[in-house]
Amino acid sequence: MSSNRDIDSLIELMAKLPGLGPRSARRTVLHLIAKRDLQLIPLADLMQKVAATARECLNCGNVGTTDICDICTDEKRANGQLCVVEDVADLWAMERGQAFKGRYHVLGGTLSALDQVGPEDLRIPQLVNRVEAEGISEVILALNATVDGLTTAHYIADQLEGRVTLTSLAQGVPIGGELDYLDDGTISAALNARKTL
Amino acid sequence: MSSNRDIDSLIELMAKLPGLGPRSARRTVLHLIAKRDLQLIPLADLMQKVAATARECLNCGNVGTTDICDICTDEKRANGQLCVVEDVADLWAMERGQAFKGRYHVLGGTLSALDQVGPEDLRIPQLVNRVEAEGISEVILALNATVDGLTTAHYIADQLEGRVTLTSLAQGVPIGGELDYLDDGTISAALNARKTL
Ligand SMILES: [Zn+2]
Ligand SMILES: [Zn+2]
Repeated sequence: MSSNRDIDSLIELMAKLPGLGPRSARRTVLHLIAKRDLQLIPLADLMQKVAATARECLNCGNVGTTDICDICTDEKRANGQLCVVEDVADLWAMERGQAFKGRYHVLGGTLSALDQVGPEDLRIPQLVNRVEAEGISEVILALNATVDGLTTAHYIADQLEGRVTLTSLAQGVPIGGELDYLDDGTISAALNARKTL
Repeated sequence: MSSNRDIDSLIELMAKLPGLGPRSARRTVLHLIAKRDLQLIPLADLMQKVAATARECLNCGNVGTTDICDICTDEKRANGQLCVVEDVADLWAMERGQAFKGRYHVLGGTLSALDQVGPEDLRIPQLVNRVEAEGISEVILALNATVDGLTTAHYIADQLEGRVTLTSLAQGVPIGGELDYLDDGTISAALNARKTL
């Protein structure tokens, strides 16, 4: 492609990133080489830093730089509410909405018969434990309104029934819609109008 | 966004890449953190290597790791043909075609009244010099068929008139192309350049 092995390897790796393909990867690498000091070097440095420090919170699955994340160690957020999300991008989307003051639990995906994802492949056992251990009074299921998201919500509701108030995000989340695509106002409206299951 | 400064900075920098936005940048960074050993660390390493070694060929503007690139130092490619392209991505596209055996000259853009890009902002003076210095017999203008590309081709043709044979890529229907997907200009150019079977 180029005549250089490192440049070609960089293009190959970039092409594996979600949403990029070979053509965007080539354009991006040329862009980075042209912006060496302003973009390429800072990007390489930050990637190295993040690779050295980023880790999953052992309690909730959020991404941070400590074994237990900032939200899990913040006592002000121990308000008895636990918001269950599919992945960290959804947690960040909820945080941008600035409406939720409790803690999170990141499942790490959804149940899926097709992809053979069962409860033990997600953080569902840990969720059940946390409800007891942290004296949770309300679990808010903020899962995507997809078939797998709804299946997962039903499964979790079965597991927790009788132990805790179960709610889910209300109107505002479109059918088939994914949280991370929504504007901040929609997320906050849906949270405030949440309903008991 | 996340609660970590380095992760946030990495997302901000990624969001500046062409074709990515804040949302893709967040997803990409989470993807990279999840694929730390297989993607994040190799990507950071390769970026650092490329930042340390990549440079523009002083002769043609291609990107490589030496002051004069592999194509310019390859004597087999001194066949008297010089292919003029807008940028390095176009040079790579020509190389993938494996049809051109000569050398290249990368302009670094096109003339543009709107963006105030003049001949001295591109490698046009160097192109005129090379035609003399390298004993070039044919200059192939492989510029994009945009208004600025055509303006640039005309300007270069004026500069080189009488010194060298000037050609440009044929316009027509791409191999495997379906008429119904082509713009009208392409169809009419292909019709005007039709050949007897
Ligand atoms: Zn946590
Ligand atoms: Zn060169």
